[in-house]
Amino acid sequence: MISPATVPAEPLHDNAPAESGREAPSAGRTAPSGTAAPVTAPRVLARCRELVRPSLSAAVARLHPWTGEMAAFSLGWCGVAGAPTDGSFEGKGVRQALAVLCAEAVGAPGESAVAGAVAVELVHTFSLLHDDIMDGDGTRRQRETVWKAYGTGPAVLAGDALLALAVQTLAEAPGPRAGAAVGRLSETLSGLVRGQAEDLLFETRPWTGPEAVRTDEYRAMAELKTGTLLGCSAALGALLGGAPDRTVAVLDRAGRHLGVAFQAVDDLLGVWGDPAVTGKPVHSDLRQRKKTFPVLAALAHDGPHAEELTSLLNSPLPLDGTGAVRAAALVESCGGRAATLAEARHHLDAARACLRSAPLAPRAAHETEVLLGFLLHRRM
Amino acid sequence: MISPATVPAEPLHDNAPAESGREAPSAGRTAPSGTAAPVTAPRVLARCRELVRPSLSAAVARLHPWTGEMAAFSLGWCGVAGAPTDGSFEGKGVRQALAVLCAEAVGAPGESAVAGAVAVELVHTFSLLHDDIMDGDGTRRQRETVWKAYGTGPAVLAGDALLALAVQTLAEAPGPRAGAAVGRLSETLSGLVRGQAEDLLFETRPWTGPEAVRTDEYRAMAELKTGTLLGCSAALGALLGGAPDRTVAVLDRAGRHLGVAFQAVDDLLGVWGDPAVTGKPVHSDLRQRKKTFPVLAALAHDGPHAEELTSLLNSPLPLDGTGAVRAAALVESCGGRAATLAEARHHLDAARACLRSAPLAPRAAHETEVLLGFLLHRRM
Repeated sequence: MISPATVPAEPLHDNAPAESGREAPSAGRTAPSGTAAPVTAPRVLARCRELVRPSLSAAVARLHPWTGEMAAFSLGWCGVAGAPTDGSFEGKGVRQALAVLCAEAVGAPGESAVAGAVAVELVHTFSLLHDDIMDGDGTRRQRETVWKAYGTGPAVLAGDALLALAVQTLAEAPGPRAGAAVGRLSETLSGLVRGQAEDLLFETRPWTGPEAVRTDEYRAMAELKTGTLLGCSAALGALLGGAPDRTVAVLDRAGRHLGVAFQAVDDLLGVWGDPAVTGKPVHSDLRQRKKTFPVLAALAHDGPHAEELTSLLNSPLPLDGTGAVRAAALVESCGGRAATLAEARHHLDAARACLRSAPLAPRAAHETEVLLGFLLHRRM
Repeated sequence: MISPATVPAEPLHDNAPAESGREAPSAGRTAPSGTAAPVTAPRVLARCRELVRPSLSAAVARLHPWTGEMAAFSLGWCGVAGAPTDGSFEGKGVRQALAVLCAEAVGAPGESAVAGAVAVELVHTFSLLHDDIMDGDGTRRQRETVWKAYGTGPAVLAGDALLALAVQTLAEAPGPRAGAAVGRLSETLSGLVRGQAEDLLFETRPWTGPEAVRTDEYRAMAELKTGTLLGCSAALGALLGGAPDRTVAVLDRAGRHLGVAFQAVDDLLGVWGDPAVTGKPVHSDLRQRKKTFPVLAALAHDGPHAEELTSLLNSPLPLDGTGAVRAAALVESCGGRAATLAEARHHLDAARACLRSAPLAPRAAHETEVLLGFLLHRRM
């Protein structure tokens, strides 16, 4: 678990223009760190993606053709039945980038992290695929999800294939630390599954009373479900790069904080995000009555607004149109939005503090910080 | 893949009385091998189960309470929602027994194989759980399957949790060979998933013509789906017991042959098994038009009986009652039953030949052979 960190908070720019990780070459630019090309997050992501892609493709090519097709679809490399696409459905590749950057940050070539980078991307793809089945989500990145396109049984199988391939890829990695890396990945898998179990169970718990979900329980779930794999990505990069245990641990912690911050931003977008950017209906998390940080934080307050919010959430009527607008206003007036912004800021700062506390190579550390800022600001 | 073996075939006693692995202490008895208590398969299974059970229980206890409950249900340790049971739903524990016996066969204490035994039982439970979702099977061992009792989403999650726990358990095993063991387990996982993919795709292929499933394709599927994990169980026992690679490889091969033989016997039971023993309706595989070895072998023959069988299988009418009786008779008259018996005999003999070719401790090797014979005869 991540330990509490007290670091000065910088403002997280709310409502900054959203940019795509693949289409905005000028996004996330910061002052150049002594080289010709300025460091921008999209450039960093693209460089890491290009480094990892041949090995990731080679790994997926080892799958049975059918599960391989579903994996390629899920990775955004093709459409249903292998139809060509323009690549715009591909994810940003944050996890592979963290692995590569953290290897470089501990003084190793990025290549040394590639097996770890492949493994974490495969695990991420597995988890999206199985979570979409469990959550009944039919759309992801403006496309059908795998279970919707191929059926539930095949989607279960494709997820299993990706998970097995992730472990196999890392177990076959050269070098003396492959065993430790697999151990860490397997702990991460257990953590991911535990986080998903908590998340599913939250849906069955009441909004108020002693059985209600507390914000600290929600944070623990987010750390498991989102932070564990980001932490593992950073840690594997450092581990395969030959870093001492202490450095591996601090980078793991940075990734976990990033995950909690990421989830908080996701929750803000789920209530107040622009549908044109998120691809989801306005107030989508409220309409679905999802238990997210802003709502839980709002309900932790007493008073008539919290009571009105509770009765809206407990009402058997659908929560859409004016109901959702009112619920969003109530969450905000009960401090849910401000608490979630503070949560995101706190964990972004804590992630940065972790990075700054470790003896890292300046350029890679800078690129990692640029990436962190981009990931969170971009999504606001 | 297993290599072809030419060994003298012994008769596989068809229609021998079926016995339960847990309730027939005199079953599978053979001549005592120089000790007071005669070696019987149920005693061997019980001894191995008792050796492994504390570690298996401790592993399952590490799961999230919800996934742990589904895992315990799936292992036959309890009913839905943790209700007590009399243990009669528990599996025989063949895989854990193979791991323990193969460690002993290479001169190590059975304890050295326990982490491997736990891992293979967890993987077996995972695969049953996910396969039941994919195959839409609502009943296993005369009880509801996990997805039927808990829902599809939770069952996907429970399988994922078991898979992650299996890898984690082995990765944390003490000793210098844990890394190699995890590598072997991850290859096995990939093989299992590939076998399940083939099995699912067979259902969409025609009964005749160039796209029809050939018996050699079916055998390759059975080796992946059933043989890989049995081979891995034996190999992990030997590996963790410190055996040289050559011995590990030959025990792996023995387990793969056992798997192919096991599948052939399962296929015989699926057509001609006694419903009182199998717990399935008479001719159940034919009624479901499953592509199994006896039917594929029968269709490989020319002649009017094979043509009549093809039109029964291709008919849009349900295949029950007299239709299923007729189909079973046609499979038999086209040689499907005899070919499947020969397949089972051949691979049982090949498994025995593998065991006899390795330098093994006599008592454990004898117990393993007793177990092999029991597993196949018992099911006929």
